[in-house]
Amino acid sequence: MNVTMSKPAKSPAMSREQIEALLAKEFPQAFHPGSGLSVEEVGFGTARVRQAYMARLIRPGGTISGPTMMALADFAMYVAVFSAAGPVPLAVTTNLNINFLRKPAQADIVAKARLLKHGKRLVVGEVDIVSADSEETVAHVTATYSIPPAT
Amino acid sequence: MNVTMSKPAKSPAMSREQIEALLAKEFPQAFHPGSGLSVEEVGFGTARVRQAYMARLIRPGGTISGPTMMALADFAMYVAVFSAAGPVPLAVTTNLNINFLRKPAQADIVAKARLLKHGKRLVVGEVDIVSADSEETVAHVTATYSIPPAT
Amino acid sequence: MNVTMSKPAKSPAMSREQIEALLAKEFPQAFHPGSGLSVEEVGFGTARVRQAYMARLIRPGGTISGPTMMALADFAMYVAVFSAAGPVPLAVTTNLNINFLRKPAQADIVAKARLLKHGKRLVVGEVDIVSADSEETVAHVTATYSIPPAT
Amino acid sequence: MNVTMSKPAKSPAMSREQIEALLAKEFPQAFHPGSGLSVEEVGFGTARVRQAYMARLIRPGGTISGPTMMALADFAMYVAVFSAAGPVPLAVTTNLNINFLRKPAQADIVAKARLLKHGKRLVVGEVDIVSADSEETVAHVTATYSIPPAT
Repeated sequence: MNVTMSKPAKSPAMSREQIEALLAKEFPQAFHPGSGLSVEEVGFGTARVRQAYMARLIRPGGTISGPTMMALADFAMYVAVFSAAGPVPLAVTTNLNINFLRKPAQADIVAKARLLKHGKRLVVGEVDIVSADSEETVAHVTATYSIPPAT
Repeated sequence: MNVTMSKPAKSPAMSREQIEALLAKEFPQAFHPGSGLSVEEVGFGTARVRQAYMARLIRPGGTISGPTMMALADFAMYVAVFSAAGPVPLAVTTNLNINFLRKPAQADIVAKARLLKHGKRLVVGEVDIVSADSEETVAHVTATYSIPPAT
Repeated sequence: MNVTMSKPAKSPAMSREQIEALLAKEFPQAFHPGSGLSVEEVGFGTARVRQAYMARLIRPGGTISGPTMMALADFAMYVAVFSAAGPVPLAVTTNLNINFLRKPAQADIVAKARLLKHGKRLVVGEVDIVSADSEETVAHVTATYSIPPAT
Repeated sequence: MNVTMSKPAKSPAMSREQIEALLAKEFPQAFHPGSGLSVEEVGFGTARVRQAYMARLIRPGGTISGPTMMALADFAMYVAVFSAAGPVPLAVTTNLNINFLRKPAQADIVAKARLLKHGKRLVVGEVDIVSADSEETVAHVTATYSIPPAT
């Protein structure tokens, strides 16, 4: 779906390292050394994040659970919002729609987020979740975030 | 939304106790004594389940995280599917759409699921998630499940 | 799903007649004498609207088309927004999610909308679409509208 | 979002001309010479279709209506399903989720569909709707179709 965000690629508003530091400070319950989460790549309005395969995220049959995929997509979108908007820790998820496509393999999962719209009040993006060992898409997400008015 | 599922209420295909026993056996990673999850009520195609307020589910500001609400909605729908279809442990979530409406209070959350369609191949339902202390709706979910062919 | 909006029912901000007059003026392409659309009931944050069964809305097999149902849900939500917010003709649909549940009969369809959240910036609601002759739900919709800043 | 459907591109199961002929026969109410609809390109599991800018599809302000965009996305997905599955006229839309991103220009709109999953029972795809004069995305859709059992 070559929906280019267009133009000579803009630089991200925050680097990968800056975003990881912000997440560790603002969302320590979700993003901490034992979470298995990492930020792999950041562009302007794009992000690639990873969830390590961990026993507690597994469902019968050995696959990563649906809620884990939803959480990873939400995490990827937060990183993509930071990459375009800079540090706006109060962005609020208002809608998330996920289609589960295939059973993931017994492996890490990677989420690739891309903003479709980056407005003053609403940000909309899509996320592909792939199995790290095959790059096969296991779930697809669209999500909307509300940016609170500046105060 | 008085969409009545109809008629003199049918009895559920499984009791609350039977469903809890099935979940503990089939989904021990998700449903175990430390999970804070419980099944409160079961009707034919309806379910009321609860997530206890626990430190690890909390986000900055003291509210229960979005992924926790998604997981609870999915759990409520599983219980509702069992209540209508009996033990079909392989039902697979194919789509989940969630609208986050309000910040939940620092309290348990309760999910009330109701099947909208109970077909041979697809089950569709909706879930209201309320804050246990106010009964105010904090999120609304619709979800679709695929029932595998009998083998 | 007895999610009561609660309290002694508030009066709607506009009457059925006022809303029909506003729609005829603002959306003449969609709401005109030949459209088959009518507003049946208006409460505070609720609406019941009807689409007459008309040849040009029909698909093979004699059923009303999916896009016709989506359009009717959107129309019902507009009426519900007016009923709660008064005349705000610039509300913009930002997200619409529809689950098609059953093939509608060869009959009118009726949409019953109810607001789940009525914020300053975002309005979220759900709509049941029923076949007028059976009251059976044929589709279920959730939708979000953005209210532009006052100017 | 480089989710490649993979491999040396497979040929479509039906050509553009074959699909247009099938649609004219099976869906004459939707796809007829006065509809303004056309199929522009077909690949294996992909489709590009167009809706001409026509007075009756317009809303106040001169923009193409939301229901017109939903109908075009549904149409694009049907073409993509045919392109991968061959003539299966009974595929049924079960879920459609649309995010409206920008006000379209006063111009044709083009929908680009791509299948994300092509299973025996369920087909899932995404659609970008762009304004024909700017290639800017105005809406994004994901949709699921149920393929009835062969008889």
